[in-house]
Amino acid sequence: MPQTVARSIPDRCLHCALRGASLCRLVEAADLPRARPVRLRRIPRNGLVFEQGKQHGTIGMLRRGYLRKERLNRVGRRTVFDLAFPGDIIGELPGHSLSYSLEAATDAEICVFDDRTVRRMMATDGQFRLGLLQATADQLARLQETIWQRGALTCRERILAFLVLSARAMPTTPRPDGSIIVTIELARKDWAAFSNTTVESISRVMSQLSEKGLVKTLAPDRYWIADPAFLARLAGMDPRADCAPPQAAMAARRHNRRDIAA
Amino acid sequence: MPQTVARSIPDRCLHCALRGASLCRLVEAADLPRARPVRLRRIPRNGLVFEQGKQHGTIGMLRRGYLRKERLNRVGRRTVFDLAFPGDIIGELPGHSLSYSLEAATDAEICVFDDRTVRRMMATDGQFRLGLLQATADQLARLQETIWQRGALTCRERILAFLVLSARAMPTTPRPDGSIIVTIELARKDWAAFSNTTVESISRVMSQLSEKGLVKTLAPDRYWIADPAFLARLAGMDPRADCAPPQAAMAARRHNRRDIAA
Repeated sequence: MPQTVARSIPDRCLHCALRGASLCRLVEAADLPRARPVRLRRIPRNGLVFEQGKQHGTIGMLRRGYLRKERLNRVGRRTVFDLAFPGDIIGELPGHSLSYSLEAATDAEICVFDDRTVRRMMATDGQFRLGLLQATADQLARLQETIWQRGALTCRERILAFLVLSARAMPTTPRPDGSIIVTIELARKDWAAFSNTTVESISRVMSQLSEKGLVKTLAPDRYWIADPAFLARLAGMDPRADCAPPQAAMAARRHNRRDIAA
Repeated sequence: MPQTVARSIPDRCLHCALRGASLCRLVEAADLPRARPVRLRRIPRNGLVFEQGKQHGTIGMLRRGYLRKERLNRVGRRTVFDLAFPGDIIGELPGHSLSYSLEAATDAEICVFDDRTVRRMMATDGQFRLGLLQATADQLARLQETIWQRGALTCRERILAFLVLSARAMPTTPRPDGSIIVTIELARKDWAAFSNTTVESISRVMSQLSEKGLVKTLAPDRYWIADPAFLARLAGMDPRADCAPPQAAMAARRHNRRDIAA
């Protein structure tokens, strides 16, 4: 009689459509003896996830919410240089320490991989290494897009570019007329930091967009966008380029929609 | 009698100390049947290496010189958002197209891997995948440093930060008094683009530094730096952080020194 292996996948993972979930599945499939399961960690808004220089070899997947990647300079000033989105692999590979801090920009949930299991998977599982390579390459591509935007776009264009990104990677409700409603849970100050601008500039640009009937603020975290594609052209973005890799963005959106429906 | 495998490593590769050379050695060691050797490609200053959106699955290692990573926006304006340094792996993984153009900022030499060999190595060789993951993670770390600098440092500090980077990653001659002479082959306009500033600002800052006896321009591409560590503090950089991963920077410097001595 064939042996039946009944491994318990938590209920919350059954419908996980996030990109990083491929790594969970590989750990599951490898069925290593004494492998420890992924641990769910909840972090309240503004809580510290990983500390600069302190984290060694711990990786996880952001399941819900958004994280700020921050660095302190010599005089202690803190700068946000990037955000993590649902589905992103976060932390550092074995043998490396984190060169920045990760803080929760919203309430967040992280699936933390067991360090020893990661080291064993890295040593034995080619698909796992390939998955990590892909996740790292995706983040490199997104950061290349961000750094390009910071150099090539004006302040106003960067604010528009963030709205375009949110329409691609944050929870959205499409409307029959082609417009969408997007939920941006991030605080304005984090949006401003990510777009390398100020909260005041965002308010000013949002007023202008509202006057032109392009974007309306429905609630502090909900925005109506008449035409995201038009916004992308207005931002001077390369229409071929995506702020987030389309596959990852779509997976995150599907996931978020299901969460909202639940 | 044991079979002797005599594979011909080109003379130019015998003493290659560049970081990316580990991938060449893995291809060599894998000894795949019908694997094609790495091909040396020379590109004159301002020549196109890879074109945005056109390159599919070709990777190479930058052996000599520096490359600009550029993107066009919708109205055709070109922006440099990053540079490639000797030892960097360039291009894209199989199945991906390049989201930016690569142009030679100086005369450059690239060791181009054979596409089919790369695909086979990716499929069969775990160490090769690990090497690519490491190279990608290194570039992500460097870009995180750059994007942080663009947000956290002033224009003057970013110019200083580039001098610190050059002292770490470009050919240098140490002097008995602890000062160094560094060769910066890059045109001022590329330095300005990388530091998100203008050629005029660089000239102004260099004059100020010269008046204070901190940096002197010896020739258009050679600079004397009294104390790189002091410059890093002056730039407000985190002293723990390196612009280039120290290992890669040191390897590139050793390599460059040998080239200059030869």
